[in-house]
Amino acid sequence: MNAPTGRLVESLTLPQPYLLFLGDTTEAGFAKTAFGLADWAPDRCVGEWAAAGCTVTTGLPLLSPAEAKAAGARSLVIGVANQGGVIGESWIAVLVDAMEAGLDIVSGLHARLGAVPALAEAAKRTGRRLIDIRTPPADIPVGTGRKRTGKRLLTVGTDCALGKKYTALALHRAFAARGLDADFRATGQTGIMIAGGGMPMDAVVSDFEAGAAEMLSPDAPDDHWDLIEGQGSLFNPAYAAVSLGLLHGSQPDVFVVCHDPSRSVILGLEDFALPSIEEVIDLTIRLGRRTNPAIRCVGVSLNTSRYSAEAAEALMAAERERLGLPVADPIRGGPGFAALVENCLG
Amino acid sequence: MNAPTGRLVESLTLPQPYLLFLGDTTEAGFAKTAFGLADWAPDRCVGEWAAAGCTVTTGLPLLSPAEAKAAGARSLVIGVANQGGVIGESWIAVLVDAMEAGLDIVSGLHARLGAVPALAEAAKRTGRRLIDIRTPPADIPVGTGRKRTGKRLLTVGTDCALGKKYTALALHRAFAARGLDADFRATGQTGIMIAGGGMPMDAVVSDFEAGAAEMLSPDAPDDHWDLIEGQGSLFNPAYAAVSLGLLHGSQPDVFVVCHDPSRSVILGLEDFALPSIEEVIDLTIRLGRRTNPAIRCVGVSLNTSRYSAEAAEALMAAERERLGLPVADPIRGGPGFAALVENCLG
Repeated sequence: MNAPTGRLVESLTLPQPYLLFLGDTTEAGFAKTAFGLADWAPDRCVGEWAAAGCTVTTGLPLLSPAEAKAAGARSLVIGVANQGGVIGESWIAVLVDAMEAGLDIVSGLHARLGAVPALAEAAKRTGRRLIDIRTPPADIPVGTGRKRTGKRLLTVGTDCALGKKYTALALHRAFAARGLDADFRATGQTGIMIAGGGMPMDAVVSDFEAGAAEMLSPDAPDDHWDLIEGQGSLFNPAYAAVSLGLLHGSQPDVFVVCHDPSRSVILGLEDFALPSIEEVIDLTIRLGRRTNPAIRCVGVSLNTSRYSAEAAEALMAAERERLGLPVADPIRGGPGFAALVENCLG
Repeated sequence: MNAPTGRLVESLTLPQPYLLFLGDTTEAGFAKTAFGLADWAPDRCVGEWAAAGCTVTTGLPLLSPAEAKAAGARSLVIGVANQGGVIGESWIAVLVDAMEAGLDIVSGLHARLGAVPALAEAAKRTGRRLIDIRTPPADIPVGTGRKRTGKRLLTVGTDCALGKKYTALALHRAFAARGLDADFRATGQTGIMIAGGGMPMDAVVSDFEAGAAEMLSPDAPDDHWDLIEGQGSLFNPAYAAVSLGLLHGSQPDVFVVCHDPSRSVILGLEDFALPSIEEVIDLTIRLGRRTNPAIRCVGVSLNTSRYSAEAAEALMAAERERLGLPVADPIRGGPGFAALVENCLG
């Protein structure tokens, strides 16, 4: 295994276990940090808490900050990300309450916790810490496009928030189970919280975006795999710059397209139709071959969480037939997912 | 005309006239800031100065900082940008000398002048100012892809540093000469220095890249043109993220491809072949139609500065024939350039 390159977060020790905070979220897609932690680090989450108006849940017990503190929690993690990554007005009283209950605040939002006067004041008064994990290292180099040793897989998507991190984590678990030498490379706040290291790609200055991705997955032994968490989508009119810099810098040998078949428009931008899986495959190859001419699509990860097991299997079978590629839901696993793993290695 | 949106630079009053500093540059492509100022703001440039090893010149008189001060200069402008935008070791003594001679220092580099201890110390000692113009506004929104009113032209390129700013400026001049309502929208340090406002696109955090481009060219009257300075290239493995965010956020109606026929590889990355003009047209339309389905290529701007007038005309005629589009060198002007302008409007 290679030393992780996420130098920023390497030096952070996040106070655990966590209380997950869901804000006033009404759309599950915006609470992906909370869901990711509940699924991939459940032993480090004592419960969840929310502000008025919240309609989503991770399924963890609902605990007030005081109850969470009594249950052993050491920090409240902001588990939601709205458009723009700002701190919701309605969240502030809850965060102050959590600090008064003895919890530190951990955030992966763009907005800095300490920039909100009420939070800065409460932190000072209670002696609690405000921890922003989204500050990239200061010394990111410009990209070079130089071909690096080792193997790389990138998860890409038809949109944001539909399974790119889950898919990379599930593949990492499957690769590890086969005894393969593999690292999960985190690129977003939740992934970094789960992995304890990584590169917050969407917080990097755009001129250094490809360079940051190069830094995240350095030269490695020939049989080593980096399984890189994708960000955004080449088709998302707000975030495609992040996706392209990550694609060029990651120079993946293989990629998996992540898709939510229940979604027809871009999350939060309803005038934009979701691209087809074929369009994503085609554009990813066209752009990705600039830094890795051998790039290929090894399969599709379908987020079928809104379908019954039967409907999901029918859907995946139809997609396999149509695309001629392995199609699986990593959350459901099974032989479909094993075939996807096989095709990564083949 | 619309109020400029470059709020940062709006509030800056750069001390003029300038002494242009060329560093230790040996490749003209890296001195585009100096060349741009010498060509587009010659009345505000008293001369040029360099560090040991420099082999390029703008043609302005060579003046030491003391001579420039005596000639009326109020600031030394760093007119070069190396890979990564760092402050060269060999430049520091010259910059200190300039401050001692009574000049402020103006920089569009990524690296902050005040972060170099020797410069910070000299500024304090001499009472001179260190002015970084590359700090984006703090309140850039996330992109929305919403279609805005007014018309937009974007210059794109086969690479960096081959004429995208020149082309937008020349088109702005031609549009103004025809009495059209048009703004030059600057996206890089030189353009911002020339225009006195704009958006330093490559210094924007990548999640906000498209939003920054949307902010730069706001809603405008139907017959108003924004002529937007392009950045980087979709084919540059270091900077494509900047180019894609700018393309999506600019939602151009028309674009002009800028190309240097003497270049065969990407500047500074010799393992990467320059793309063909056709590849750039095709990929720009494919990606640009996501936010403007009517996007079209209106012509090619050829940088023929390394060719004789005769060779340049033969080259442009051959490209016109091959591509079926207006092809012109805006520096040479003439009927070829007039045809390009016509096609923008048609």
